[in-house]
Amino acid sequence: MFSNLSAGALGLTLDHATAIDLAARHGFGGVDPDLEALRALGGADAVAEHAAAVHERGLEWGMGGLPIALDAPAAEFREQLMALPEALTLLRSAGVTRLGTWIRPMHEQLDHRQNWRLHLGRLSLVAEILADHGLRLGLEYIGPKTLWSTERFPFVHSLREMRELIAETGASNLGLILDSYHWYTAGETAEDLAGLTDADIISVDINDARADRERDEQMDLDRRLPYDTGVIDLPGFLGAVRAAGYTGPVKVEPFLAELAERPVDEVLTDIAARLERAVAVG
Amino acid sequence: MFSNLSAGALGLTLDHATAIDLAARHGFGGVDPDLEALRALGGADAVAEHAAAVHERGLEWGMGGLPIALDAPAAEFREQLMALPEALTLLRSAGVTRLGTWIRPMHEQLDHRQNWRLHLGRLSLVAEILADHGLRLGLEYIGPKTLWSTERFPFVHSLREMRELIAETGASNLGLILDSYHWYTAGETAEDLAGLTDADIISVDINDARADRERDEQMDLDRRLPYDTGVIDLPGFLGAVRAAGYTGPVKVEPFLAELAERPVDEVLTDIAARLERAVAVG
Amino acid sequence: MFSNLSAGALGLTLDHATAIDLAARHGFGGVDPDLEALRALGGADAVAEHAAAVHERGLEWGMGGLPIALDAPAAEFREQLMALPEALTLLRSAGVTRLGTWIRPMHEQLDHRQNWRLHLGRLSLVAEILADHGLRLGLEYIGPKTLWSTERFPFVHSLREMRELIAETGASNLGLILDSYHWYTAGETAEDLAGLTDADIISVDINDARADRERDEQMDLDRRLPYDTGVIDLPGFLGAVRAAGYTGPVKVEPFLAELAERPVDEVLTDIAARLERAVAVG
Amino acid sequence: MFSNLSAGALGLTLDHATAIDLAARHGFGGVDPDLEALRALGGADAVAEHAAAVHERGLEWGMGGLPIALDAPAAEFREQLMALPEALTLLRSAGVTRLGTWIRPMHEQLDHRQNWRLHLGRLSLVAEILADHGLRLGLEYIGPKTLWSTERFPFVHSLREMRELIAETGASNLGLILDSYHWYTAGETAEDLAGLTDADIISVDINDARADRERDEQMDLDRRLPYDTGVIDLPGFLGAVRAAGYTGPVKVEPFLAELAERPVDEVLTDIAARLERAVAVG
Repeated sequence: MFSNLSAGALGLTLDHATAIDLAARHGFGGVDPDLEALRALGGADAVAEHAAAVHERGLEWGMGGLPIALDAPAAEFREQLMALPEALTLLRSAGVTRLGTWIRPMHEQLDHRQNWRLHLGRLSLVAEILADHGLRLGLEYIGPKTLWSTERFPFVHSLREMRELIAETGASNLGLILDSYHWYTAGETAEDLAGLTDADIISVDINDARADRERDEQMDLDRRLPYDTGVIDLPGFLGAVRAAGYTGPVKVEPFLAELAERPVDEVLTDIAARLERAVAVG
Repeated sequence: MFSNLSAGALGLTLDHATAIDLAARHGFGGVDPDLEALRALGGADAVAEHAAAVHERGLEWGMGGLPIALDAPAAEFREQLMALPEALTLLRSAGVTRLGTWIRPMHEQLDHRQNWRLHLGRLSLVAEILADHGLRLGLEYIGPKTLWSTERFPFVHSLREMRELIAETGASNLGLILDSYHWYTAGETAEDLAGLTDADIISVDINDARADRERDEQMDLDRRLPYDTGVIDLPGFLGAVRAAGYTGPVKVEPFLAELAERPVDEVLTDIAARLERAVAVG
Repeated sequence: MFSNLSAGALGLTLDHATAIDLAARHGFGGVDPDLEALRALGGADAVAEHAAAVHERGLEWGMGGLPIALDAPAAEFREQLMALPEALTLLRSAGVTRLGTWIRPMHEQLDHRQNWRLHLGRLSLVAEILADHGLRLGLEYIGPKTLWSTERFPFVHSLREMRELIAETGASNLGLILDSYHWYTAGETAEDLAGLTDADIISVDINDARADRERDEQMDLDRRLPYDTGVIDLPGFLGAVRAAGYTGPVKVEPFLAELAERPVDEVLTDIAARLERAVAVG
Repeated sequence: MFSNLSAGALGLTLDHATAIDLAARHGFGGVDPDLEALRALGGADAVAEHAAAVHERGLEWGMGGLPIALDAPAAEFREQLMALPEALTLLRSAGVTRLGTWIRPMHEQLDHRQNWRLHLGRLSLVAEILADHGLRLGLEYIGPKTLWSTERFPFVHSLREMRELIAETGASNLGLILDSYHWYTAGETAEDLAGLTDADIISVDINDARADRERDEQMDLDRRLPYDTGVIDLPGFLGAVRAAGYTGPVKVEPFLAELAERPVDEVLTDIAARLERAVAVG
């Protein structure tokens, strides 16, 4: 696994060139791709040239965002499907192999089984189109009870459910986004991660939780930097990820507004050090 | 439909003979059977004689409790299965046709899909054994969010889910227990009840809710007598039940401890009047 | 229900204008729409004018073909989805409300559960897009064992399975295409049709079977005209369709090559008479 | 893995003592347990003593038959459940850990989804009761088309379906009975066996097929001894079984009536040699 700079996940607004430069200077192993920036390059040749330059700076690609909303109304989903191949072709030209999205863990109208069918059908279709372009898709389950309990029908909010959803699609290019924060809030342990392999994991996020809240009181958008409070058993989490033989990006997604107010270099020095610790231990 | 005296649902401790007597004197149309009392009669002939006497007093049988826990560990479930035919034969000798149970709307370990499979398998087996004895089984879904959100994995807590669960068993002797309290707390309307027929409904409960709480704050065990607060649209609920052509028992299950402290005759006069109003309107 | 001229189902090659003229002259109650012919009219106004003219000749629209293959590879399915709204808008402009397709009853690679998920996901998406355009979709199950047993994994080949597939989509604009030939070869009886309503049925086909073959030896593409052999219990089938309150088109689909060799007027006189008998009895 | 003498699978009628003696003399690594013989010993102490004696002769236990019919009517299934613990306790006293059964690959009334639910529910219950007694259960899928196509609704007849059925139970003590004959007739290859581990496999059967029949014409009860015709790729099959790290019994089940007519010692010398070859290669 390698440390990855995901500016968006840190709440930083960096243009793509700056992000790449900062990632290289701070010793990250990778950086997230930016679809809009790739588009602005104006063509497959320029994209390939850009990707080669990023690679020469010692950076791998992290994970891009899936440009389609799985739970949109059918007409909107169809529109997004129309636009999909252009984006996938562009990402593929740049050598990107990982896309990701999260699954909304509740719904006001659709009960668990209805929502399952919706996601299963849409995911199967999207996964096959991504496979045609050589891309894998990571799915993130959301653990905090303060989120999944806010609407009438809770949906997937645990690793086991997500693995079953992926298995039912039959797609070999779907995998997990494992975030220590969701793993902790879902009440899971290292044992729940046993048996996973590199092929099962698309991306890994490490975060810590507030020390002054019980597990079921933790809020999805109010986290702590990894190793801050020690609430979350990061060594246990990362040990299981290492046991899986995971080779992909590891990033931090703390939802801490204050990061954007500190000097960027200071923030990235801090984040890079935390990720190095994780990658070394993990 | 007919008004039914269910002493247990009112929180009253009445021996079976007293319950029958009170039901007849207060003009109820039916009374719940009591498995232990039937057992104490000592044989099929005595049971049939007893049932004839109850019938002569103008009373039909309401609904008995299912003597098996659907979500018990397998070894315990097997033990209960062993004992089941004796109880079913006794109930059948008395002319009882309706049994009922509720479905626990959450689980700490089993997620929605695991719990669905557990209930589907157990229900299919139990339904077939009940069918062999000429009995129908009613299933009650539990609506209050203050209950289904208390453990890791919410389960069936809406009419639609319950209807799908019943449909998947393929059993024609499974049906619904419709309780206005669960219907209200689940955020359902008369429209959700459209299309139901008498064959779909095993029992009906009418209750009202506290006026000083929002829907999602209502507690399962803190209700009001029907027509008390008007929070629940009983005319809408009962209109839909009538439209279904429902012919079974209607009872009250308020979980009001104070009822047990008032004189029984006063309580039953009150309850009978409320049920009469419901049966007349509905 | 009304008799419907479906030239394609009879194996006749008629241009749309001729089909309409013949349908009117032979007293059919309806005629199938022709997407290509509508497209050739050149615009919504011309389409509406055309539809009004058809209506003035006393004809309703039968059922159009669904212009999308549910089991195509994802890339191809996506392409067809892109083209779908234009076709649906055109059909809707003409006042068409019924489209239909059949479900292939076997697959060499996908087992029953994999194929179910494929169809469920695709159907849900297509149904929602059709609903946005005010269209309903009929699904035909295929009964002959000589067809469903020809590949590794048999799929939906009975009414019950098809009804479950439709129910799982949750779509209210999906329904059945009932063909007496599939109903017979699937070993079904009038009882299996009990409980259906007009909302459940999109189209009805009546055909008879060869008298010199057992049920399991009947071939999908070697049938007989309705009432020819009496092998199929058409009165029982049509009685159930009538009991459902069905109001849509009834057609014949015999796969008899010889029809194309006889004078068209002679053929249509024959077919119209058989359909009249069915509609009158049914 | 070890060679196992299963007299019943060879069509031989041997009392238990003789089977044990022959297994030891012919160098088999194991022998199937015999529930009736254990019962006849008259108690747990005698059973343990018997098991120790078998073990001292260098024999492990193969696989016993599951004493319950998964697809029986509910009343009958319940009766068998009642009797189950006594049998399981006895088998456990003898140190048996593997039981097995096959899944009937078709049904005249229940379609694939109905039959899936029946098996899923029953299997989950039985697996939990077996787990309480420290026993694992192997499930055998049946491959020949000449069998699964003989009734209205084909059911599980492939490895993938069987693995999904097992996974849905959530039971960790369910596994596969892999028979090269079913693997071949199901059109499967070594690749389909990739990823299996010892925990996934309860028992292995090796058989060959007739050389004068196509795959889809092979009959379930008309097989050949392993390595006889070379129709089945036994090296490929056994290579995959070895790659899984399989440690259990391997037996032959040829359904060849002629074996019972030859001298027993001659037959067992032949079978033992074939199994030795398999175990050595595999």
